[in-house]
Amino acid sequence: MIRSDLLEYNFPEDLKSMSLDELDLLSYQIRDFLLDKVSKTGGHIASNLGAVELTIALHRQFSSPVDKIIWDVGHQTYVHKILTGRAAGFDNLRKQGGLSGFPKKKESPHDMFDSGHGSSSLSFAAGMAAARDIEKGKYDVVAVIGDGALTGGLAYEALNNIGDSGTRMIMILNDNGMSISPNIGGMSKHLRRLRATSGYLKFKKNVKKTVTGIPTVGQNIYTHLSRMRDRLKYSVIQEGIIFEQMGIKYLGPVDGHNIGELIKVLNAAKQMNGPVMIHVITEKGKGYSHAEAHPSRFHGTGPFDIDTGKPSVSTDVPTYSDIFGRAMKELGTEDDRIVAVGAAMLDSTGLSDFKRAFPKRTFDVGIAEEHAVTFSAGLARNGLKPVVSIYSTFLQRAYDEIIEDVCLQELPVVFALDRAGVVGADGETHHGIFDLSYLNHMPNMNIMAPADRSELPAMLRYALSLDGPCAVRYPRGKASGEEHEVTIDGKSLVLSTGSDAEIWTVGEMVNTALEVSAELKEKGISAGVINARHIKPLDEETLKESAGRTKLIVTLEDNVISGGFGQAVRSRLAENGADIMVMNAGWPDSFIEHGSCGGLKEKYGLDADSLTERICDLIEKKA
Amino acid sequence: MIRSDLLEYNFPEDLKSMSLDELDLLSYQIRDFLLDKVSKTGGHIASNLGAVELTIALHRQFSSPVDKIIWDVGHQTYVHKILTGRAAGFDNLRKQGGLSGFPKKKESPHDMFDSGHGSSSLSFAAGMAAARDIEKGKYDVVAVIGDGALTGGLAYEALNNIGDSGTRMIMILNDNGMSISPNIGGMSKHLRRLRATSGYLKFKKNVKKTVTGIPTVGQNIYTHLSRMRDRLKYSVIQEGIIFEQMGIKYLGPVDGHNIGELIKVLNAAKQMNGPVMIHVITEKGKGYSHAEAHPSRFHGTGPFDIDTGKPSVSTDVPTYSDIFGRAMKELGTEDDRIVAVGAAMLDSTGLSDFKRAFPKRTFDVGIAEEHAVTFSAGLARNGLKPVVSIYSTFLQRAYDEIIEDVCLQELPVVFALDRAGVVGADGETHHGIFDLSYLNHMPNMNIMAPADRSELPAMLRYALSLDGPCAVRYPRGKASGEEHEVTIDGKSLVLSTGSDAEIWTVGEMVNTALEVSAELKEKGISAGVINARHIKPLDEETLKESAGRTKLIVTLEDNVISGGFGQAVRSRLAENGADIMVMNAGWPDSFIEHGSCGGLKEKYGLDADSLTERICDLIEKKA
Repeated sequence: MIRSDLLEYNFPEDLKSMSLDELDLLSYQIRDFLLDKVSKTGGHIASNLGAVELTIALHRQFSSPVDKIIWDVGHQTYVHKILTGRAAGFDNLRKQGGLSGFPKKKESPHDMFDSGHGSSSLSFAAGMAAARDIEKGKYDVVAVIGDGALTGGLAYEALNNIGDSGTRMIMILNDNGMSISPNIGGMSKHLRRLRATSGYLKFKKNVKKTVTGIPTVGQNIYTHLSRMRDRLKYSVIQEGIIFEQMGIKYLGPVDGHNIGELIKVLNAAKQMNGPVMIHVITEKGKGYSHAEAHPSRFHGTGPFDIDTGKPSVSTDVPTYSDIFGRAMKELGTEDDRIVAVGAAMLDSTGLSDFKRAFPKRTFDVGIAEEHAVTFSAGLARNGLKPVVSIYSTFLQRAYDEIIEDVCLQELPVVFALDRAGVVGADGETHHGIFDLSYLNHMPNMNIMAPADRSELPAMLRYALSLDGPCAVRYPRGKASGEEHEVTIDGKSLVLSTGSDAEIWTVGEMVNTALEVSAELKEKGISAGVINARHIKPLDEETLKESAGRTKLIVTLEDNVISGGFGQAVRSRLAENGADIMVMNAGWPDSFIEHGSCGGLKEKYGLDADSLTERICDLIEKKA
Repeated sequence: MIRSDLLEYNFPEDLKSMSLDELDLLSYQIRDFLLDKVSKTGGHIASNLGAVELTIALHRQFSSPVDKIIWDVGHQTYVHKILTGRAAGFDNLRKQGGLSGFPKKKESPHDMFDSGHGSSSLSFAAGMAAARDIEKGKYDVVAVIGDGALTGGLAYEALNNIGDSGTRMIMILNDNGMSISPNIGGMSKHLRRLRATSGYLKFKKNVKKTVTGIPTVGQNIYTHLSRMRDRLKYSVIQEGIIFEQMGIKYLGPVDGHNIGELIKVLNAAKQMNGPVMIHVITEKGKGYSHAEAHPSRFHGTGPFDIDTGKPSVSTDVPTYSDIFGRAMKELGTEDDRIVAVGAAMLDSTGLSDFKRAFPKRTFDVGIAEEHAVTFSAGLARNGLKPVVSIYSTFLQRAYDEIIEDVCLQELPVVFALDRAGVVGADGETHHGIFDLSYLNHMPNMNIMAPADRSELPAMLRYALSLDGPCAVRYPRGKASGEEHEVTIDGKSLVLSTGSDAEIWTVGEMVNTALEVSAELKEKGISAGVINARHIKPLDEETLKESAGRTKLIVTLEDNVISGGFGQAVRSRLAENGADIMVMNAGWPDSFIEHGSCGGLKEKYGLDADSLTERICDLIEKKA
């Protein structure tokens, strides 16, 4: 049954007839395949290497898509994609028009849930299970969640509800002791204790003796297993198990790299009538020494050399995260009231050095963006100056807390929104294109966006000088410009004026606006560029002057148009009685797929050429 | 020390020198006072009656505002207000310019946190405690949270972090077995089990013997208490305690109406070095028989007769919640795929009848708005038609889940946003004036607002016919109009046309617009009124026609202007090349305080007279 090329299998059907030895061999084939492909395209490699056996066992013991398998976060579904007929797509993984790095309903009937943000799988699966019960369906609903995602409040809300309802569903806790960085939190400590128990081995021995007869023995086995499990719980794990206390049966811990054991525990879980949590222990990066040694670095990676584990392309240009990290360290040295708060992303947001320098002034709360925000509000209420660093898209989780616990309290919390705007290969769930819209209507909020590497530190300094909430948003990747002294003072920066048009823009889009201005000049159109710097409050004076000297105001932003920077500019001009034409450019009212940032901008008309053409058309039509 | 009039005390100082008997007498005085005042003004009575002794004990044993007391949700702070010198304000409780029904930093230095949404106190307190530790402060930080709020994910994220960090702080779990309705969920079951243990009595006996010496004996007592507590845990509560497993010391349960016991346990907690959770058992409505019998009805109430417990004013006019409830029952009878999902508010959102008729198709997930939304997405993914009913302001908690788990998945989840627009007496944290802004920029979302009682059922029907996400938002209180047949079809309703102006509006604001139109007519200005019905997508055709026949488009909405209905209308007109003046009316970019809805509209220029004047001015200036 083992084939020489992974593409030749007929998955998932072929799995059903494979022996344990063949499945083991398959796991090697899959790891080779993953390394070969992802080392070329880049992607989330460590978590997928850790989930090979688990995914094989799931697709062997359940019949997807009749049985529903729901993946939390979704970046660990590469193996699931291979086992549902999508291996051929891996050459174009995460490329525009190619295979997504996350589950996608439109890609396969095996993908139940287009997940990308953490902690949501249990709720979604609970809904699917409840619907199944109402419609008297007989299939299984299985949710796979990482131990990292279990720190998110949404997962707890789900457990609380699932434990109460008693709905039959299977939850797999894929516990690798990591979220993206090593886990923290009371729940993690609890899981660590469970991992350390000898229940694991004992359970295995018992199951081996009794489960052989499944599924024919049915009820008998269930009773036995249940008794055995209970004995285990009360004898071995004396301190009790949180899941059990919430009304959820606990099975485990189980070795997540042993397909035979996984199959047995899955069969046992299938016999149970209520919710069950299977605690599966896996190793992030399993089977690839570099990823095992550096699971964080291989969480999400660009192309790399398989032998050395080193990035294929390396660059000295600092990213915005680097610049942010450096600025934080400098500011933190000057003022010891400055503290940093992160949500399981200290490294990737650039805060490693700050943490090393000021360990007691650094707080990593785990995947818990809501708590990060309200906790920061508490820090600020007692006189500190917290800087919360969270990706733009993940800060969406804390929308309510930003309004109620920070803005309403008028507290000086600084939000550093990394990965704002489109992020490229991660797609729909990771683009940070809503932040200007969700922050703009919050009373008391200040919002800025740096156009280059010099403005970010200056904006942070300005943000920390304010006595109220302030957000600074900046994109993924390299920071343009050179380092020089910049002063931020609430005013916009007029880079050039134009008699035909002036382009008001923020962030790295300033560079695009400058290109547009140059292209327009060649066509005989005089277009100025203003780096607005401040999205809220707007620099009304400069805006008024601009409207007074030109015929068209163009706004350009790396955010959706609805509710964003441009609409605010348009409204402010009208309120101030300026009778001037305004054109808003930004992302449309739809979800933006994965692709390169440049490619996406071209597709959606946000590249210099498209914008030049639109502005020309508008000016000609009006003339 | 007992005074005949509650207003004559010098609180909180006077508490320190009162004997236990005097404190008991005081609790009677306070209950009398609360009943007397709140029966006239209306307000949150049941939770405050339940917290009398607890609040007395807290202010006796801690020195606020040096020690920080943080109240979750905040509607249970009436006693706290009395004990911090604000008893005189109760005649104007919740009235415009009067005492707020929630903690307010601007009202008193004893109010740490302007809370109104649930589950946030632990995070905020953890931040304050962490800041204290950095600055080497010695005071205590105390958070009081209800068992209901403990179902919220934010509280869990906080516990997870607090248990890990080991920060010294005191958490009081005020457990009355209710959130607003009786509690549900795995955590509630767990708490119920703890309540039933005999640990309570044993603990009391032991404490009595050992704690007498505090604070002089100090460390000794701590060791002893700690040992005693540990013995208790492992002998009496065999199944373990969730808090302990997360790294938080547990003390309790303790009788929350026994001031002596409360003082003892608070003193014990003060001696501990890490985080401690005191489990206090209280009765909602304690001391007032009608509220004890009907705690839900007396959660938030209008003025009532103390003897009978009946509302002072009663009315037959149905509220929007009533209309929603009736429509849901009717629609649910027609289509058994329709299911209802609520977050601890089934009664107050009008779903009691639906629940009685279709118990298996009704899901109350507790105070867990995020889970409610993602759970609904799962229901919809499996073919059901979920209607999630949540107050506009509380749905803010699920902003990210609405985008990621519903809109991105293009799932037909219907959001019924009750209490949209200003709600009156509850103020800042309860007004639902951001929903049009936060929903408007979500791709795939449909948004409607009924202008009267006939439109709501029709809009629900239309929403359920769509194959995607849809929100229907409607205000608190009475629904205007009569019942008649209405068909909703994506089009706006032109009530009248006007050559000078046309007012585009939604929801109950249509009535205001009609008044404005009449007033303008008297001044010789022809102003039409369009009930837009649909906020998203806008009825572009009717909008175009409107712009073609009038000179000024006025938009009017019970929402903030930023990112709302009006700015969308303005943008759409400009994009379609309509060269017309637009005036946006709505709430300004600031938090709106408590007051009557009418009074607030007058203050902020959203009443008919003010609007008429603004429109006149604009037309005159332009002419």
